[in-house]
Amino acid sequence: MTTSASDGRRNREDGLAFDRETAIESIGPGRWRARLDAHWNISDSPNGGYAASPLVRAMAAEVDGHPDPISCTTHFLRPAVGDAEVDMAVEVIRRGRRTSSVRASSSQEGKPRLEAVATFGDLSSRPEGPAGDGLGIELEPPPLPSPEDCVDRLELVQGVPLPLLSRVEVRIDRRFATPGAAGEAATAGWIRFRDGREPDSLSLVLFADSFPPSLFGLVGRQTGRVPTIELTVHVRRRPAPGWLRGRFSTREIAGATLVEDGVLWDSTDRVVAHARQLAMVTG
Amino acid sequence: MTTSASDGRRNREDGLAFDRETAIESIGPGRWRARLDAHWNISDSPNGGYAASPLVRAMAAEVDGHPDPISCTTHFLRPAVGDAEVDMAVEVIRRGRRTSSVRASSSQEGKPRLEAVATFGDLSSRPEGPAGDGLGIELEPPPLPSPEDCVDRLELVQGVPLPLLSRVEVRIDRRFATPGAAGEAATAGWIRFRDGREPDSLSLVLFADSFPPSLFGLVGRQTGRVPTIELTVHVRRRPAPGWLRGRFSTREIAGATLVEDGVLWDSTDRVVAHARQLAMVTG
Repeated sequence: MTTSASDGRRNREDGLAFDRETAIESIGPGRWRARLDAHWNISDSPNGGYAASPLVRAMAAEVDGHPDPISCTTHFLRPAVGDAEVDMAVEVIRRGRRTSSVRASSSQEGKPRLEAVATFGDLSSRPEGPAGDGLGIELEPPPLPSPEDCVDRLELVQGVPLPLLSRVEVRIDRRFATPGAAGEAATAGWIRFRDGREPDSLSLVLFADSFPPSLFGLVGRQTGRVPTIELTVHVRRRPAPGWLRGRFSTREIAGATLVEDGVLWDSTDRVVAHARQLAMVTG
Repeated sequence: MTTSASDGRRNREDGLAFDRETAIESIGPGRWRARLDAHWNISDSPNGGYAASPLVRAMAAEVDGHPDPISCTTHFLRPAVGDAEVDMAVEVIRRGRRTSSVRASSSQEGKPRLEAVATFGDLSSRPEGPAGDGLGIELEPPPLPSPEDCVDRLELVQGVPLPLLSRVEVRIDRRFATPGAAGEAATAGWIRFRDGREPDSLSLVLFADSFPPSLFGLVGRQTGRVPTIELTVHVRRRPAPGWLRGRFSTREIAGATLVEDGVLWDSTDRVVAHARQLAMVTG
């Protein structure tokens, strides 16, 4: 396995990596199969947002007409397995006019791995402006140097191998690029697929979990793994093509767990997703 | 129905209202029954956090030994019904040493109402201080006047009847007590049960959904109902006895939905829960 950028570019030859490596196959009513690829690993296990992506696709496929996950919660029961098949079960709980609700579970090697519940809608017809009565609150994106003036996550000292970065390009504001130097548990930067695939609402679950742990900005040592217990993503808009901008911060740490919040903006500076996760501090 | 405080105090005569009105009865393997009481309504439908509470209790009962919902997500498929029975199905997905994961659904009058997924743990044995390596980030509670110097939510002009306030006492900082006067979509204040029942980790799901919509602080009109599509609560500690302090704010509004964040602190000023919800702006 390699984490070089050239590896990512090679994916163009046989389709875009995210589409190919989260592809789902129907194997019966409410049953789907996929295969996780180890190129999206963090250390020895698939990135949580990536592991959730075939499940999100399977849910979207079952709620025909409501393609966008406006609220998607995934619980990570045990680490997923790279280079292994995934069996998925999807149950639509309610089909509504404006939204549909669905639950889903995945297993690998006979063991439950992920459990998800989500509400899907159709953000294509969403009013672009504020609500009908002129009510709107926009969250402005943080000012950032251009992607070229940020640091590729590949260059950060993180204490674990990151095959994920062969697929996802993350460029971090220099203020957050040295462990502990930011003085706060935060990170900010840019993200996109290495092979030029444009972002869509389904890929936001991956992007919401692909920045360095925000703890990295605070802790003056290698952060190591900060495995996700649960991740909730609210997709707010379909992203415009181009880089996404992200900002993540740890709200609170106590005991052995932390709560991290994140926001993703698209290239038109509009919020496309909110994310929150409960994660373990492995120390 | 009445919303007077005297009604709340009468509950003492036959047990504490929250325990009695969220009581669950086992009716088979993984099957539970409860009855929602209309005293917890907002307008004609039960408060979402209240409607979720018997479900949270049923999940806690099934994951014996892990009584605290460290992450609990509830999707509200359609409004719950006050003064009606609830049928609940609970499935434990994984029993672990430190945590257990579980999903649950409820129906009333033959229709699915709530779908939940949660991870439970045991916060009694949780280290009270920061993580093992001295790492901790505390979120300080907002400064607030004493409960006596705040405004009872009963006195706020909110555009909908609030039977809920016969059971839950909410006292709002005067800065947020007049619609639109705060100039921001935020609210802060104190909360407790009217009948003196002390808070516990299960009741935090209710308290996380019982403040006035934070939109109230921004909008110069009656806010009306802001129905919850999905609510995620992360319980961080078992609360100490006494008042809880809460602060809620709307992070972003677009289209017809908003994302609202909240934090609850106990009487020792420590964070006991984080909450985030996706809600409809009914306008």
